[in-house]
Amino acid sequence: MAPSIPNVQKAAVIPAVGAAIEVRDNHPVKQPKDLAPGECLVKMECTGVCHTDLHAKKGDWPIPPMSPLIGGHEGVGEVVAIGASTTNQNIKIGDRVGIKWLADSCLDCEMCRKGYEQNCSKAKLSGYTVDGTFSQYVVSYVNHVTPIPKSLGSTDAASILCAGVTVYGAIKRSNTHIGDWIIIPGAGGGLGHLAVQYANAMGLRVVAIDTGEEKKKLVLKLGAEKWIDFKESKDIVKDILAATGGEGGHAAIVTAASTSGYAQAVDYLRPTGTIVCVGLPNDALGANIFWVVFKSIRIVGSYVGNRQDAIEALDIAAAGKVKVQFEMRKLADLKSVYEGLEEGKIAGRMVLDMRT
Amino acid sequence: MAPSIPNVQKAAVIPAVGAAIEVRDNHPVKQPKDLAPGECLVKMECTGVCHTDLHAKKGDWPIPPMSPLIGGHEGVGEVVAIGASTTNQNIKIGDRVGIKWLADSCLDCEMCRKGYEQNCSKAKLSGYTVDGTFSQYVVSYVNHVTPIPKSLGSTDAASILCAGVTVYGAIKRSNTHIGDWIIIPGAGGGLGHLAVQYANAMGLRVVAIDTGEEKKKLVLKLGAEKWIDFKESKDIVKDILAATGGEGGHAAIVTAASTSGYAQAVDYLRPTGTIVCVGLPNDALGANIFWVVFKSIRIVGSYVGNRQDAIEALDIAAAGKVKVQFEMRKLADLKSVYEGLEEGKIAGRMVLDMRT
Amino acid sequence: MAPSIPNVQKAAVIPAVGAAIEVRDNHPVKQPKDLAPGECLVKMECTGVCHTDLHAKKGDWPIPPMSPLIGGHEGVGEVVAIGASTTNQNIKIGDRVGIKWLADSCLDCEMCRKGYEQNCSKAKLSGYTVDGTFSQYVVSYVNHVTPIPKSLGSTDAASILCAGVTVYGAIKRSNTHIGDWIIIPGAGGGLGHLAVQYANAMGLRVVAIDTGEEKKKLVLKLGAEKWIDFKESKDIVKDILAATGGEGGHAAIVTAASTSGYAQAVDYLRPTGTIVCVGLPNDALGANIFWVVFKSIRIVGSYVGNRQDAIEALDIAAAGKVKVQFEMRKLADLKSVYEGLEEGKIAGRMVLDMRT
Amino acid sequence: MAPSIPNVQKAAVIPAVGAAIEVRDNHPVKQPKDLAPGECLVKMECTGVCHTDLHAKKGDWPIPPMSPLIGGHEGVGEVVAIGASTTNQNIKIGDRVGIKWLADSCLDCEMCRKGYEQNCSKAKLSGYTVDGTFSQYVVSYVNHVTPIPKSLGSTDAASILCAGVTVYGAIKRSNTHIGDWIIIPGAGGGLGHLAVQYANAMGLRVVAIDTGEEKKKLVLKLGAEKWIDFKESKDIVKDILAATGGEGGHAAIVTAASTSGYAQAVDYLRPTGTIVCVGLPNDALGANIFWVVFKSIRIVGSYVGNRQDAIEALDIAAAGKVKVQFEMRKLADLKSVYEGLEEGKIAGRMVLDMRT
Repeated sequence: MAPSIPNVQKAAVIPAVGAAIEVRDNHPVKQPKDLAPGECLVKMECTGVCHTDLHAKKGDWPIPPMSPLIGGHEGVGEVVAIGASTTNQNIKIGDRVGIKWLADSCLDCEMCRKGYEQNCSKAKLSGYTVDGTFSQYVVSYVNHVTPIPKSLGSTDAASILCAGVTVYGAIKRSNTHIGDWIIIPGAGGGLGHLAVQYANAMGLRVVAIDTGEEKKKLVLKLGAEKWIDFKESKDIVKDILAATGGEGGHAAIVTAASTSGYAQAVDYLRPTGTIVCVGLPNDALGANIFWVVFKSIRIVGSYVGNRQDAIEALDIAAAGKVKVQFEMRKLADLKSVYEGLEEGKIAGRMVLDMRT
Repeated sequence: MAPSIPNVQKAAVIPAVGAAIEVRDNHPVKQPKDLAPGECLVKMECTGVCHTDLHAKKGDWPIPPMSPLIGGHEGVGEVVAIGASTTNQNIKIGDRVGIKWLADSCLDCEMCRKGYEQNCSKAKLSGYTVDGTFSQYVVSYVNHVTPIPKSLGSTDAASILCAGVTVYGAIKRSNTHIGDWIIIPGAGGGLGHLAVQYANAMGLRVVAIDTGEEKKKLVLKLGAEKWIDFKESKDIVKDILAATGGEGGHAAIVTAASTSGYAQAVDYLRPTGTIVCVGLPNDALGANIFWVVFKSIRIVGSYVGNRQDAIEALDIAAAGKVKVQFEMRKLADLKSVYEGLEEGKIAGRMVLDMRT
Repeated sequence: MAPSIPNVQKAAVIPAVGAAIEVRDNHPVKQPKDLAPGECLVKMECTGVCHTDLHAKKGDWPIPPMSPLIGGHEGVGEVVAIGASTTNQNIKIGDRVGIKWLADSCLDCEMCRKGYEQNCSKAKLSGYTVDGTFSQYVVSYVNHVTPIPKSLGSTDAASILCAGVTVYGAIKRSNTHIGDWIIIPGAGGGLGHLAVQYANAMGLRVVAIDTGEEKKKLVLKLGAEKWIDFKESKDIVKDILAATGGEGGHAAIVTAASTSGYAQAVDYLRPTGTIVCVGLPNDALGANIFWVVFKSIRIVGSYVGNRQDAIEALDIAAAGKVKVQFEMRKLADLKSVYEGLEEGKIAGRMVLDMRT
Repeated sequence: MAPSIPNVQKAAVIPAVGAAIEVRDNHPVKQPKDLAPGECLVKMECTGVCHTDLHAKKGDWPIPPMSPLIGGHEGVGEVVAIGASTTNQNIKIGDRVGIKWLADSCLDCEMCRKGYEQNCSKAKLSGYTVDGTFSQYVVSYVNHVTPIPKSLGSTDAASILCAGVTVYGAIKRSNTHIGDWIIIPGAGGGLGHLAVQYANAMGLRVVAIDTGEEKKKLVLKLGAEKWIDFKESKDIVKDILAATGGEGGHAAIVTAASTSGYAQAVDYLRPTGTIVCVGLPNDALGANIFWVVFKSIRIVGSYVGNRQDAIEALDIAAAGKVKVQFEMRKLADLKSVYEGLEEGKIAGRMVLDMRT
């Protein structure tokens, strides 16, 4: 028997670009009969909160968000309805699935055919160009929701769907293989601590850069081989060279990209090294062209991941190799979570329980 | 019978960094008995002149050139002596060989083992860290001189050894294959007109950007499919998008790199596109990080090529698919060639006859 | 105004596995209202006939064909109807499209996500597990029909959709690049003469193997650099080594695979060479393991192509770089075409005009 | 001060193809002054014994061994002399180095330039075409001896130099990445138990196939996720499919290749799977062409590894991720070790102490 679908729900709505979010009790739920072919309705269990949600709220990116908007793009829930005439039969009512940043794509254009679904010009973005996971019932798309492995808890899965996929995809694009040195600035952060674990699981040797005793302990426990405290280091480049046998890293995953971070990465990588850009600042790359060419450096923009990346990232977590560090909150707490993010006070990921 | 080796020769010497070149008649020739194991003496037939030679003369790059110095790094000649105890038996006296920018490398370090000999930390650079091709007899290295295919004339081969290898290597690193659109700014120049031909020979579709009726005729004859005159275009990005069916290029070969050139390339490439950097300006990459990530753009520094690249680039030329546009001069003319280069007055490559 | 759809049509039906085909006048046409979501109805202009159609008729492959069956899988026509509730909006009524061997796939499984749609376990095969192109109206699938470039005639496009895609995909998987030697046995045949052209368009150097003056003329005209007549050659391996400068080919495209053909290919390829298997005989690979390992040989099964391969193969033909050699017939002639194929009497491809 | 070099030494000599080995006390030592440029003299500490040594003794491979011959190709020792006029300065007297199957290559031909040094036509093979490690002083080649990481004991390093490099190279060529299923028949054997560890270190999921409780315990301890006892299994293919979630493996490393082993691998791999051939039987590949093509299977011959592979394989062992299971013997025991190998009675690797 199908679960009964209420008419209204709790949802965190951004009424206008830049406005404060409002957590409402009576937001309408799209009913199963109204779902278009290819759509599904997901009853949320939980959802992570990502720094990108702040940009969606502020509207400070070159691409404008929808308005009004429900944010959120790393949530887990149960499929409770599927649009009539949906052709994809792989997802069934009752499946536990994840909703990620890439809500849907056409699966038919050059980008989709080549496996770059995230670069589809018709891509729909959860919590940005379509409503996201900060509501109890979310309309998503059968072709793109991600089945959650049985052995992985929903709250453990949530942040894998965005933070995990993002860093996993970045490492996949880093031209590294077992034994290579990978440099991870911000290794103790929400993205960084996952990058350390994915890198370690692939046999890469990790140089973790961050600050403070707590983060040091965390990243060494998660598999980093070397630690550099950027507040204590007098010369980051020199310290990275020393940590990597004098030659420099084979790759760097730059999550919190700043113009200077790129210039520095060119210096601390060995020739033919790869800088993977993950952060989305509206800034110019500071890397010096002479050295990029002379050292045969590659700079790779890595934008979340495709469906396959998401499945792989979850499978690796389900195998116990990657564990998100997170704290639970309620949907009602979202406003304070946003404030904490904005003030840079939140370490690790925050996950909201959506059932209450 | 071995040819007789004179004691002195004509050579163009830069006596000190930044000083004017002096073409001398009585420069000493290293005698066969003095060659170290692995060295060979090459009697030059001809040599091209490259923009890099200006940097060697001025010393305006972050890496200091040797001083005093004989410049030049794209020359062809005959091996007239090989150092005693040389183990590599593949090169014989009498072979016609090319001398390229990469004069020697250790063949044993990580970079060499992986085929990035140009990134060897012990690399010797012709006309920069060791004496180059602007003399009648040049000491080079058996492991790195490049045999010239029989069907290719020496003057046709000369500029393939630097300009040709450089653009060929760049296209190899551009992640393109047959049918893809490749954008070539400066298509009518010394590097550009070779890039057009190599790209065309691989089945790529070329959008050539340059200015003037003469260059237009040239690049269309050499295989470009579309032409954009940057002085006539009101919106280069828009014109490139139109030329490529609305989607943008798959790759761009940026030879005369400027900060703004990179920002523009991010705009006119389709998602997942590749920008190959070939020029060596001491400037910052102007590309915007947000768009590099959002469009999954790759930026690849491509620094000349390895031994295999050089052989392939020559073979393609020998097959008649690529032809350098050049004018002949004499070694005595080198000073005026430098002046022409500095004033930007030289179109195409200049090749010096070294026999007189 | 939508074109009127008749109730009955001409179609070539195989009533039972192994039975003779029957060309009928009154085969029913599936009406637009009966199309499922994702299906489209294509009014055929023309269709090629492929050797695989014989296997579909005989049922001599390890995978059983549908029965009764309408064969055919390289046809071109116009979309005249699309099933209601179809989500993919990229194909419109009036579009000229191609129907290829791979009629449909789920686009959601591991194989589809990785771009190996042809290896989808839910794949539908035109003229094998679903009715194919030997009828005037064909039900196909919006996600998989291939738009035909404007500048390419329908009869020129037909055989690209199977023979062209197959050899193009094979060359893409051959680990070759410009200047490499590729060996094409059967170069004058239906697949071979297209392989010669695609290889040539990519800058590969082709050794064509076949027999007879006519085929020799054809393949040299189409771009082969060397010709070996297997009836005149006393030692094929020796002749191939001689043709390739003594080192052997970099790759071979083995279309008419026999056990002995593979053993031979291991001998005439240089170390690290790639043998691409395209033919589908129910036989064992005859290659010797010792030499496969010692020479680091790769043997790659290449099974038609994916959607992207099909689009690329057509684009290259549309650019004038590849031209199918074919003769026109009528649907009524299909029986005699089959007989000719079975007797090995047909050179090149046969294309049926489906409008009469 | 240089160590003193004796005039005679202990060595195990095969006087003629097929003859029994003779362990001699008075085999001459090549003196430092007689070393050619590029040669070095290595005082052996220990050496592994490999199945290939049997083939060298018997002369049953298509390539004839040198005769008389000293076998052995996975040994570790100290460089005690280097030939005068050697150009490569990276190896010094006193360095601890490994000698592997590939004793030397030209570093200049197409294969060497492309990093396939093992496929160089001038390759010298230790214990096969040049004398190997079964003597106390071995002449080897500066360009190819492999520095041993400080943290790795000599006896632990010995079998990495052949068995380790071979399986590591094979996995590198298997087109797998983290999370993929890799099938390892013979997982408890000399090559297999190393393959399990390298695969595990890269994050691959291992299905180990072998027989007996002892081997089961070993491979599960070394990181295999699934175990199949081929003597207990009623249907190996079915069991592998079940172990891999119904889809089959992504790759198989076939070390003890037999014709039937390849046919089976085609069945138990999922489409696009890769079979890596490592064993060198003089037999035909039994794989069925129809299924190889239909499933897009790749079959890759992997022949030991290059210099970079050797360094990486050792580094991974030095990091504690791979440990050879071996027993120590003396050179004098070599004859009985050969007999044990021939009778299939030896589990794991045997390493000879060469100092006594």
